[in-house]
Amino acid sequence: MTKPIKIRDGLTIGGQQLQLLAGPCAIESRSQIEAIADYVKAYGANFLRGGAFKPRTSPYAFQGLGLEGLELMVSTAKQYDLAVITELMDVRKLEHFLALEVDIIQIGSRNMQNFDLLRALGETRVPVLLKRGMAATLDEWLNAAEYLVAGGNENIILCERGIRSFETSYRNCLDVSAVAALKQRCPFPVIVDPSHAAGKSNLVTPLAMAAVAAGADGLLIETHHNPEEALSDREQALTPLQLKALLQQADKIARTFDRHF
Amino acid sequence: MTKPIKIRDGLTIGGQQLQLLAGPCAIESRSQIEAIADYVKAYGANFLRGGAFKPRTSPYAFQGLGLEGLELMVSTAKQYDLAVITELMDVRKLEHFLALEVDIIQIGSRNMQNFDLLRALGETRVPVLLKRGMAATLDEWLNAAEYLVAGGNENIILCERGIRSFETSYRNCLDVSAVAALKQRCPFPVIVDPSHAAGKSNLVTPLAMAAVAAGADGLLIETHHNPEEALSDREQALTPLQLKALLQQADKIARTFDRHF
Amino acid sequence: MTKPIKIRDGLTIGGQQLQLLAGPCAIESRSQIEAIADYVKAYGANFLRGGAFKPRTSPYAFQGLGLEGLELMVSTAKQYDLAVITELMDVRKLEHFLALEVDIIQIGSRNMQNFDLLRALGETRVPVLLKRGMAATLDEWLNAAEYLVAGGNENIILCERGIRSFETSYRNCLDVSAVAALKQRCPFPVIVDPSHAAGKSNLVTPLAMAAVAAGADGLLIETHHNPEEALSDREQALTPLQLKALLQQADKIARTFDRHF
Amino acid sequence: MTKPIKIRDGLTIGGQQLQLLAGPCAIESRSQIEAIADYVKAYGANFLRGGAFKPRTSPYAFQGLGLEGLELMVSTAKQYDLAVITELMDVRKLEHFLALEVDIIQIGSRNMQNFDLLRALGETRVPVLLKRGMAATLDEWLNAAEYLVAGGNENIILCERGIRSFETSYRNCLDVSAVAALKQRCPFPVIVDPSHAAGKSNLVTPLAMAAVAAGADGLLIETHHNPEEALSDREQALTPLQLKALLQQADKIARTFDRHF
Repeated sequence: MTKPIKIRDGLTIGGQQLQLLAGPCAIESRSQIEAIADYVKAYGANFLRGGAFKPRTSPYAFQGLGLEGLELMVSTAKQYDLAVITELMDVRKLEHFLALEVDIIQIGSRNMQNFDLLRALGETRVPVLLKRGMAATLDEWLNAAEYLVAGGNENIILCERGIRSFETSYRNCLDVSAVAALKQRCPFPVIVDPSHAAGKSNLVTPLAMAAVAAGADGLLIETHHNPEEALSDREQALTPLQLKALLQQADKIARTFDRHF
Repeated sequence: MTKPIKIRDGLTIGGQQLQLLAGPCAIESRSQIEAIADYVKAYGANFLRGGAFKPRTSPYAFQGLGLEGLELMVSTAKQYDLAVITELMDVRKLEHFLALEVDIIQIGSRNMQNFDLLRALGETRVPVLLKRGMAATLDEWLNAAEYLVAGGNENIILCERGIRSFETSYRNCLDVSAVAALKQRCPFPVIVDPSHAAGKSNLVTPLAMAAVAAGADGLLIETHHNPEEALSDREQALTPLQLKALLQQADKIARTFDRHF
Repeated sequence: MTKPIKIRDGLTIGGQQLQLLAGPCAIESRSQIEAIADYVKAYGANFLRGGAFKPRTSPYAFQGLGLEGLELMVSTAKQYDLAVITELMDVRKLEHFLALEVDIIQIGSRNMQNFDLLRALGETRVPVLLKRGMAATLDEWLNAAEYLVAGGNENIILCERGIRSFETSYRNCLDVSAVAALKQRCPFPVIVDPSHAAGKSNLVTPLAMAAVAAGADGLLIETHHNPEEALSDREQALTPLQLKALLQQADKIARTFDRHF
Repeated sequence: MTKPIKIRDGLTIGGQQLQLLAGPCAIESRSQIEAIADYVKAYGANFLRGGAFKPRTSPYAFQGLGLEGLELMVSTAKQYDLAVITELMDVRKLEHFLALEVDIIQIGSRNMQNFDLLRALGETRVPVLLKRGMAATLDEWLNAAEYLVAGGNENIILCERGIRSFETSYRNCLDVSAVAALKQRCPFPVIVDPSHAAGKSNLVTPLAMAAVAAGADGLLIETHHNPEEALSDREQALTPLQLKALLQQADKIARTFDRHF
């Protein structure tokens, strides 16, 4: 009973086709985002992800290129005919995201219950990818989505990205039960972000496979053409070849359910 | 090594005197806030707490009186010579909080990592009470405080309000270890909110006592002159007499440490 | 680098073939266990699971048929040429399990760190399926396994069955990251129990698929020919037809990895 | 409505007098246990704690002196007229504990749901201190106690020792809400073990104070005459002077409730 969300003509999330949303943690330069967009497109993905405004735990860590990064990303995506998904943190920046016609606005875990931000997005009709809070219950998450619905914006995509647990050998605990339960409880497509759940690249692929098998409608993956030189989250970024292999295997699993990437 | 924060002339948080910050969950009307301010003052408290802008899990729940509530609260507090603490959720409302000279701006758990809001407060010098996120580690919490410090605002008060756990017989798990650890690790005063931790009134008093014994610099307590008619969080609001008894017992415990309320 | 564990001639866990270990939560009667063994065998499974000694949260709940149940199960399994896996709680009962030639002895979550029980099993060479404790880290779990290794018994199969979390809409949070991480860290096969993780039948199948996709070596599934009349855990038992469908889909996913059931 | 448990003539747990149960993590030698018993007695405590059979996460860590340690402890306690509390892990050792007239048998967190062990203790009338499991809900804990009650043994003391959480800067999260809630829900005295909750000595004292203020009936504290040479848990053991100071401050807080140590 998932209701597909139309992103562009001929491009939806939540239908028979699963979507791969791939790109770097942060936009670092034109050459970086072009290099990544190039192989993301070549592998058949339709979406470019990347952060211009980064929510960093410490104020002294790299905060992203900001508006300049956003413009770089949008122009690069246009060049490669990719749809853009990127994170909005500050309600005062919303007008820029709308002016630049960002295809999907991501609301990160830390802002899942930033209700004024959600209300502002509820007034628009732009598709919103709403990540689950670090320790949010499904009820809280669906209630946060309801802040968008209340304003009239039902273009909602949920994104499971791992929850807090006591285990320290991976960053978060990917909750595949949430994926399965949400598919039964609500009409919103559910995307999974195994990169942030794992926090290290060698777990990303098996988690991505688990997500597809549990019924996810797509994958949000961090990739970098040169992970060792990434300015943030380098431990979890997939190389181009790892991304390609992931997509091939994920497609095989999707096909056992009569779906495909 | 706690550095007291000056709120007004002769009024600090983090010194020998512990502070009680009491009031309703939400401001409902002038008569309500006056009735509560009256007994809060009579019992010897120096701070009136109350919500004008309420972060509610559901968009269809009572959201607070907004700016009108804020003005009601500030004028009532002035009348009773109480300092005001109230929550700011939306960065676009900050100017109102500053214009009305709110004494302490509370940042709630859901916004602990709303970094743009923190940055804006970092540019001011208004005391900020920063509540711990639902599942925030001490490192994340102190890094969030660092967003204020980075802007030059060191008037920071931390507030422990319980963390997420698997236990369902109370709302959150009050983490008294955090209180003790923070007093050893950082210079910021630490306040405890047993009302939100407990979620029901019959646990508020023992949790408040535990907090004082663990070294807290004050208590943030929800109270209502008529809890059964409260528009929100009625299960956890203390009656006037319960508040009075709490304060007397808390003062006795504080005195075993050569402190007092 | 998983080292397969030989259970019987021609029957291993941890190799190219994944195993389905299916049966009722508790053995209730000869007719019940025969009815279940009959379709479990017909669907192609090699293992019959079932509890004779049940660890129940309350002492007043059905505790299992005990030794009589164990004998019923072993004789039924022999009749259908199925290997037997069943739980041992009390070290004083070990001799019965050995005498009856139980193929795999299960150590439940509550006894993961019952070190004297583990030491006693370390002295034998019987294959042990060691379930993860409710809130055990991978380090604690592998250290518990080391109690078996220390005695010389390396016939160890690990079983992920969900961990405690704050979410209340399913019983436990199935930790697929643990499956992937263990496959990289240790030589022991890893089985997944989606039935106890989910706590309700409508989530069992998607969790089972996620487990296979994450790399699990088999599935431990509760099934009952008539779930509504089961004496325990009826909400999570699959019907025969649900079990059959699960196995077919799981096999398809396994084949995308060049494995099979 | 707490029903005091009689330990010896004139010695109860759960009455107006709070009890301090202090001693080393593990019994190491006669000279060690005598040195510790000497100052524990001198400070006014009535109970000597210490482990002879130690549940260690790794099989290769020091496992305790076993039966020899138990005998050392009992004879030393007799010499100093102290009651003895020590942990039983293996049901086959119960007869030794009974023969040596251990005053309180401790069941550790890892065995909270070792139901066969609880059943065996239910057949005796020896006081049992039942520690909360790492991630046990209050319902599960009280149901475990019910395994003792079902056998006729109501001499039950509950012990809160911290629960698993995501926070890594202390070992466990001491749950003072559990103390307060249990005092309202059940007739069993509640003891708190701040040593295992904290995992480091500098947090033990504030946690102990919080426990007393929350209503605990006593404290279980690890102490060593020379913590740096302790064979286990040296980071959390209090020195004699720290223990003395803890007891003095705890007594002051108890007296604000008209109780005392």
